[in-house]
Amino acid sequence: MPDIGKLLWPRSVAVVGASSDTNGLRGRILQIMRGHPFAGPIYPVSRSETEVQGLKAYRSVDDLPAHTDLAVLIIPAKFVPQELERCGQAGIQAATILSSGFAEEPGGMGAALQNEVHAIARRHDMAVSGPNGEGFANTAAALCPTFSPVMEAGKIPLLPAGGRGQVAVISQSGGMGFAFFDSGRPKNLSFRYIVTTGNEACLETFDFVDYMLDEGKTDVFLLLVEDVKTPETFERVAAKALRAGKPLIVSKLGQSQAGSRAVASHTAARAGSPATYRAMFERYGVIESSDPQEMVDIAAGFLAFGSRLPAGKRVGICTSSGGGGAWLADACVAAGLEVPELDVATRAQIDVHLPPYGTSQNPVDVTAQAVHQLGYAEFARLVAGSSAVDGVIVVITGRYPRLLVDDREPLQKLARETAKPIFLWSYTQPAEACISLLSEAGYALFTDMSNCARTMRAMADYRSVRERLMRG
Amino acid sequence: MPDIGKLLWPRSVAVVGASSDTNGLRGRILQIMRGHPFAGPIYPVSRSETEVQGLKAYRSVDDLPAHTDLAVLIIPAKFVPQELERCGQAGIQAATILSSGFAEEPGGMGAALQNEVHAIARRHDMAVSGPNGEGFANTAAALCPTFSPVMEAGKIPLLPAGGRGQVAVISQSGGMGFAFFDSGRPKNLSFRYIVTTGNEACLETFDFVDYMLDEGKTDVFLLLVEDVKTPETFERVAAKALRAGKPLIVSKLGQSQAGSRAVASHTAARAGSPATYRAMFERYGVIESSDPQEMVDIAAGFLAFGSRLPAGKRVGICTSSGGGGAWLADACVAAGLEVPELDVATRAQIDVHLPPYGTSQNPVDVTAQAVHQLGYAEFARLVAGSSAVDGVIVVITGRYPRLLVDDREPLQKLARETAKPIFLWSYTQPAEACISLLSEAGYALFTDMSNCARTMRAMADYRSVRERLMRG
Repeated sequence: MPDIGKLLWPRSVAVVGASSDTNGLRGRILQIMRGHPFAGPIYPVSRSETEVQGLKAYRSVDDLPAHTDLAVLIIPAKFVPQELERCGQAGIQAATILSSGFAEEPGGMGAALQNEVHAIARRHDMAVSGPNGEGFANTAAALCPTFSPVMEAGKIPLLPAGGRGQVAVISQSGGMGFAFFDSGRPKNLSFRYIVTTGNEACLETFDFVDYMLDEGKTDVFLLLVEDVKTPETFERVAAKALRAGKPLIVSKLGQSQAGSRAVASHTAARAGSPATYRAMFERYGVIESSDPQEMVDIAAGFLAFGSRLPAGKRVGICTSSGGGGAWLADACVAAGLEVPELDVATRAQIDVHLPPYGTSQNPVDVTAQAVHQLGYAEFARLVAGSSAVDGVIVVITGRYPRLLVDDREPLQKLARETAKPIFLWSYTQPAEACISLLSEAGYALFTDMSNCARTMRAMADYRSVRERLMRG
Repeated sequence: MPDIGKLLWPRSVAVVGASSDTNGLRGRILQIMRGHPFAGPIYPVSRSETEVQGLKAYRSVDDLPAHTDLAVLIIPAKFVPQELERCGQAGIQAATILSSGFAEEPGGMGAALQNEVHAIARRHDMAVSGPNGEGFANTAAALCPTFSPVMEAGKIPLLPAGGRGQVAVISQSGGMGFAFFDSGRPKNLSFRYIVTTGNEACLETFDFVDYMLDEGKTDVFLLLVEDVKTPETFERVAAKALRAGKPLIVSKLGQSQAGSRAVASHTAARAGSPATYRAMFERYGVIESSDPQEMVDIAAGFLAFGSRLPAGKRVGICTSSGGGGAWLADACVAAGLEVPELDVATRAQIDVHLPPYGTSQNPVDVTAQAVHQLGYAEFARLVAGSSAVDGVIVVITGRYPRLLVDDREPLQKLARETAKPIFLWSYTQPAEACISLLSEAGYALFTDMSNCARTMRAMADYRSVRERLMRG
């Protein structure tokens, strides 16, 4: 097995096919890479330019001034095998191939090129990702060899402040892979890696998962899979993830006939039978989802309370909006959760704080009035204390920070001390200050009601499946 | 029937219970109202203050300096009947009651008060909304008698520029009612009214729908219903909406036992049997949804292409991301759409523009390269031209305006001329400039893949159900 560490954590990188034209993909890769403070040298390799974007360019990987770990290849497909061979001979041990025109192209020529890539990588024991990928990002190393506009250096840093757990994305699709980051980063999720694997001529999704599990820094995996090429690898790695308690959240594309046509043309994937995949996934507690936002939301739930998974499916709802509580109760039941009435002792503790038009039954309608007096945290704590529930969802409005700022310390304390997970659904668009405050306190903040309910369900299921499977 | 026009379009408004303390609800209503340029006079009525927020205050509605159309009541429940009676005697013909503590409160006292409210309104033929509501907003009149923070005057105007169709929200829940505006306004939807009806002691949801249908300015309705108190009104009004081709998008709360408990405690609603409601809704082509974001997305679809509903369930997918196209194809099939292969003639027209690793099969993977050359509009036009499809979904990235700015005119022309609806799903978070550009061109821009697919399905269903029901 080649060393994936050389690919994801290179000390130096050559960009083969780099260009000064930042309107084209070949120019954009270098531009995006240089937007981030990667510590090592970056060497443009170009046949036509002696200087690229202000950096000295080299005619070939043979000419590089020092040993290089990783080659980023963005040249026409037909030149890829010879260039990869040259990399191997130059002692470069890793490559990511962003060029298209391999096995996904009808006619057989591309498939032959892909076979060559596979053979060369094998011969030199190189860690090769792609072809037909969109590169990757390693946020801790500030390394983004990709042309995905999502990874352009922007206003917000690659990693949020105070992030606890980290998520890794591995996706055959480049666009969708980086889209997870695009939708999750504004929610203050910490992404450790986004790896796009394209046709997977050499390294497959679960090879990367394997590496990351061994590394031990990734807590949750988001995987977008068009096919599993080596079921044995899947089984070994999925079992390892289950033992480690690191959830794999997977969407398997090509479930429909049209989707199946699409993945064949996209990455030459053989979609296979949905039922077979489902059975395979179930055997290892893999969490299946069919929606990008839902996947990110489930990941957020695990990142916040993965160490305190719900012991069952009974949820306590705590709300300042009566209608919001009712709607969420319906959504919870639709997601397979139970919303039982709370026990008498807990209700008595809550009732003393409520006006007569509130209710402690569950949903606990604390009313806007009481929440303004006592804050969300205290009510959530009381509900979580009930023996009738395994987790709590608090319906909040994250539109204005004031109420949350006043409630900050109780919220932090609750997140630290609660034995049951506490989920927050904001029924209005949250302000950035609220997102930061709540994520730094240790919560996941949901803006999608149904996803919030489904997240608690997925976490309860994961715990119960894992306990059953671990017992053997 | 009292005149709802006096309630929604008053020339003058009294705020009974107005306060200088803008930290409390009684102060916030006036503050929010005055943040918008409502043309008529606003009279604070207060027993304790002679001036409220810089306005002369009146001790009673008897003392108002001129005839007043609408009274906004935010005083303790026990005072509401006598104050409403005083309004009636003063010739005020409409009231919205924001106080809580009526039939939703256990014990019977509140129910008795609510009966009084009903009797007084009837005696004076007053148009009364509430009690236990959160007021309403009439955006065209810039009138927002509510304490919902969502309606505070902010950076963006109440109505977007260049809005075509308009949506009205009628919701028993105040928090959820205004939340529709909160999530839909940033998508550039035009909201004409947001009316929150609370306990519906007098006017019910479908009374408002009736008024708005007669007014003829509302194109789509978002209704959040805890119970339908007068089925005869529902039937008459729903039939009228169907004839007019104005879709009613409804979520009925209280589907589960817990939800049913919650609506009883929230607005004293009797949730009733989900099956009964479903049958009732189906009879009139009412579109049911169980999710707030989905409701807003479906409304957006109708606002954009309500006059060109899909003639069937066959969708053409056009994408610059191969993975995005595959995923969406699966989502379309899951939503009950069909994703057929395109006809040979259309494929030939598309193929001339594609690199060999693209495909015209459907999903049409135009590749990032071809889309940069030709833009989205031309490919969408070609796909829409196929006799194999009834509508098109285009997978785009709305993150950067450049590509869309270059494509603006073809996009505008396409939106004007297409006979089939064209939906846009952005797999990255769209920039505000892209949202404006596309909404002004006449499109709905979806950020939720599954909702995009379900919207086309809902629109196809609505057309087919309506055609069937109209035939008799």
